[in-house]
Formats: sequence, C-alpha cells, structure tokens
Amino acid sequence: MNINDRVEKYININEVVPRDGLQNESIILPTKDKIALINQLSYTGVKYIEITSFVNPRWIPSLADALEVAKGIERVPGVKYAALVPNLKGLERALKAEVDEVSIFLSASETHNKKNINKSINQTYPILREVAKEALAAGKTVRAYLSTVFGCPYEGSISVDQVVAISEILFDMGIRELSLGDTVGVAHPSQIEEVLEVLLNRFSAKGFAMHFHNTRGMAMANVLKSLDMGIVSFDSSLGGLGGCPYAPGASGNLATDDLLYMLHGMNIQTGIDDNRLVKVACYIQEKMNRKLPSHSLRSGC
Amino acid sequence: MNINDRVEKYININEVVPRDGLQNESIILPTKDKIALINQLSYTGVKYIEITSFVNPRWIPSLADALEVAKGIERVPGVKYAALVPNLKGLERALKAEVDEVSIFLSASETHNKKNINKSINQTYPILREVAKEALAAGKTVRAYLSTVFGCPYEGSISVDQVVAISEILFDMGIRELSLGDTVGVAHPSQIEEVLEVLLNRFSAKGFAMHFHNTRGMAMANVLKSLDMGIVSFDSSLGGLGGCPYAPGASGNLATDDLLYMLHGMNIQTGIDDNRLVKVACYIQEKMNRKLPSHSLRSGC
Repeated sequence: MNINDRVEKYININEVVPRDGLQNESIILPTKDKIALINQLSYTGVKYIEITSFVNPRWIPSLADALEVAKGIERVPGVKYAALVPNLKGLERALKAEVDEVSIFLSASETHNKKNINKSINQTYPILREVAKEALAAGKTVRAYLSTVFGCPYEGSISVDQVVAISEILFDMGIRELSLGDTVGVAHPSQIEEVLEVLLNRFSAKGFAMHFHNTRGMAMANVLKSLDMGIVSFDSSLGGLGGCPYAPGASGNLATDDLLYMLHGMNIQTGIDDNRLVKVACYIQEKMNRKLPSHSLRSGC
Repeated sequence: MNINDRVEKYININEVVPRDGLQNESIILPTKDKIALINQLSYTGVKYIEITSFVNPRWIPSLADALEVAKGIERVPGVKYAALVPNLKGLERALKAEVDEVSIFLSASETHNKKNINKSINQTYPILREVAKEALAAGKTVRAYLSTVFGCPYEGSISVDQVVAISEILFDMGIRELSLGDTVGVAHPSQIEEVLEVLLNRFSAKGFAMHFHNTRGMAMANVLKSLDMGIVSFDSSLGGLGGCPYAPGASGNLATDDLLYMLHGMNIQTGIDDNRLVKVACYIQEKMNRKLPSHSLRSGC
C-alpha cells in the first residue's frame, strides 16, 4: 500500500527546455541567452540537458543556431548534453557539435508521423537505424522519443500492440532509453497503468522515460502512477515551457519545478537544487516575457 | 498493484463553486446569475451543491444574497443543497432558506483559525457543537470543513495528532462528513498517505472528503493518492474557481471538469454528465469575464 516501499529513491530528470521548451515559441531566444540558460541549468545538479535540435532549421527556425549553442556552452562534468537528430545530415552536425547523446524520434501514430516528418512509420525505421548505428559507432549513446503513445489528435487511440512492436524495433537499434510521449496530454493514470503493464512485461522499466504534457492537468497524477509502476526517468521542461507544434491543442510540458516539488516532498532524490532551479526558471520566464504555466512560479520570482 | 482493484467505482463530487468559488471574487455575480448557475448544475447529475454561505455579509459581501439564492433556486430531487454556517445566527438564516445540509468550519491551525474567525480552536468548539445540535434537531445533516490540515501559511506544518483530536471532537458532534482541506495547496502525495493512514486507522474512510487546492499543481496527484487510500468523496469547484481569502498565495480550487476527466477516464463513475458540466463551466467563465484555471476549458468553449 505504501508507495514509498515500491518507488525508486532516485529519479532521473531529463531537462528538455532548451529544445522542446523553445522550439515552438514565437520569441526566438538569442544564442547567447540559450547558452546562458544551459550554463545555469548545468549548475542546478540536473544530469541531463537536451540542448537543441539538429532538425533542418527551415522546420524549426527557433533552433537554427544549434551548432553555435552546442559549441558555446560550458560542459560541466557529470552532465549529459543531448540533442534531437532526425537523419544522417543532422547527425553529422550533432557530431561536429560534440553532443554526448543523440535523440531520434518517431510517432506511434501513422498519421501523426506522416504530418510530422512526411514519412510512414515503416519508411522512418531505416533512417533511424542508420542514425543510431552511426552515432553508436562514433561513441555516442542514443535515445528515442516515441510520440502520441497515449492518443493521437488525428487517429484517437493508439493500440498498445503497436507501441510494443515499435519499442522492440527501437530497442533493437541499440537505444539507451525510450521516452514515451503523451504528446497531446490525453492520458490518465489508468491508461498509464495499462500501457506500462504491457510494456514492462516485456522490457525493463529502466529502459523507459515518461514525457507528459499537462494539457488536461493530468501530468502530475500520471507521474505518480508511473513512479508506482517502477519508472525512474522523466522528461520535463523548466517553467512548463513548450508543447508540440504538430499537435493541435497541445500545450505545456510538465514543469520541472512542479515535478521537483512533488518528488522532493515525497523524499525522492533527483540531485537537483530546487532553489537554483527556480532562479533559472525565473530567468527564462523573464526572457520569454510572459507568465509560464508552471505552478511553482506563480508565487513570484 | 492495480489501483482499480482498490478504489471505489463510484465517487461523490461536492460541487463548491457557488460558495467557495465565488466568495473571493472581485466580480460579484448578480443573484439571478447565481441562481442560473445552480439550476444548470442541478441538471448535470451532480448530487451535492454548496450553494452559498450564511456567514455575516460584512465578511463575505459577494454572498450577501444567500437567502435569495437559496429561495430562488429550483430544488431538483436527488440533489443535496448545502450552505456554510458559522454560528447560530447563520443557522437561523440557513433554516429559513431550507437548505438540506449545513457545513460548519474550523482550522487545524490555531493561528489560521484566529485570523479566520477571531477565536481559538477551543473557543470555536462550543459554537460548532451548538450549531450541529440545532441543525440535527431541525432534521438537517451536518458537514464540517477542517482547513490547513496539510500545512498553514502562518504555522507551517500541522501535527497529525492535532488533526486526529479535532476530527474526534467534530465526529462526536454528529457530522456526516469531514472535509479535509489543503487550504494553501502545499500537500504532496506522500503527505496525503501519511495523514490518511493515521486517520483511517481510527475513522472510516467514508467519513471523509478531500478538499484540494491546485496552488503547486499537486491536486490531481493528491486525488489519485486519496482514491488509492479508499477516499470516496471529493470537493471541487467548476472551472477551478476560488481559493481562500485568508490564506496568502492560495489560488485555484481543484477544477471539477479536470477531476471528471481523470475519474471518468479511469472508469470511476460520478453520475455527472461531462458535456453538460463543461457547458456550465463555460457559462461561469463568461460571467467571470476571465480565463478560469481549469485545464479542460483551455481548448475553448
């Protein structure tokens, strides 16, 4: 009955604000501010920062300075600096940028994948396999994002079998971790339980991260349920910045600052210093020039 | 492991928007709009509506029309119409208004209670006992609110022993249900578990309701944990309207519409029709002339 008897006492937080948080914002943060943001994050105790995306800048102009950002930041020992990579061309730039890990991505929904990268899921596999192979050969680790796992804005529900089949293929590519995305924020705790029960029957819990959006206010309850199922890795975005540009109605990543309030309150360690993190949240809120969705920031900076 | 094996399949929702939602708003809703709000709510399937407060209108001017509201609404069979009552004078008005149930209230924190009603906890008991006795004699049921159960803005943490002792005294007054309030929204799931574990060792889970504020984004996770502990009754406010006027920094009741998204998604019944309820949420959002905190309303009305 006691959740504390089951959940791990140390949870990995993957801070995605420099990439997922900024990619869809109308304000394009200057390169020097992105570098300042990442450098500040590096000293909060967070062990993983997704610093940018090497997707074609025509698609995501706000992250066109990926190489400059990666080259400009301080590399703090113990912090893993990762970037999103869509294909070999992106990988080439990412390797030049000397990131520690690359993240490949795919959608569990055919329609969403098509709208996102103009390819079917089956057409996407060879590209991802090639990127993963080359990245591993270059001594990098590889992570994968699987989006719309809990529902798609175009197709509605997504079969768990589909998620299992895709996971199998992605793990076979040698990925270190698979981030399961609730891209449009439709998941509720029972669904988390149902999907994870099937997945964890087949794969280790340590192979997954959860990536929740707070669109319907469910993110924190879904984290609680995921902890309960043995998940030890969560993506979150400082201040709750970000969403998915290809998912209508999607808004608000789970806020790192809110997540820490819950985890630290529950005596689960993350290695992150709350006070330092909130200062960085205030920095980015000021730069974005609007109230961010995070609850922790509402009481003021 | 499966939460659905433990939690009840039917949960009582206590809709508090006409009282807790409106009491602290700068816009004073005209009496006819309050009546329209309650009448619409009565047809959503909700079984419990706290329609107003018989606190001295000098304290809560926005609810000065308590009697007119109570007299003006339609009484739909199967719906319990309740009101907040601070003392015998308030009870007299509530009885005249023919409410079904009266709610008495107290804070678990001495300082908060003093600031709220200018009396110590011990000085408050005889007043509550008298109200409860008279209400029961008049054939009404009695409910109690205990605020700052999980933390006080003035005193910080509140001892569980204090909560147990107060609960004992309140149950002895013949109350039907005790609503445990996280008035400033500081609670996290482990704390819910710790407090409920002690309380439910002594009292039946059926005797409690949980009253969460979403100040730090914890409300939904706390509901999930409470369900897990066997709680079957939750207070919530349509659109997330309301807070506590005497608790600095407090904001946003748990939104009924968001709560239903989770409960119904988890196959837990409430008897409430989501679509009808969202229409009422849109009605009150329009009347309040601002974006309400509910997540469900963000996708538009």
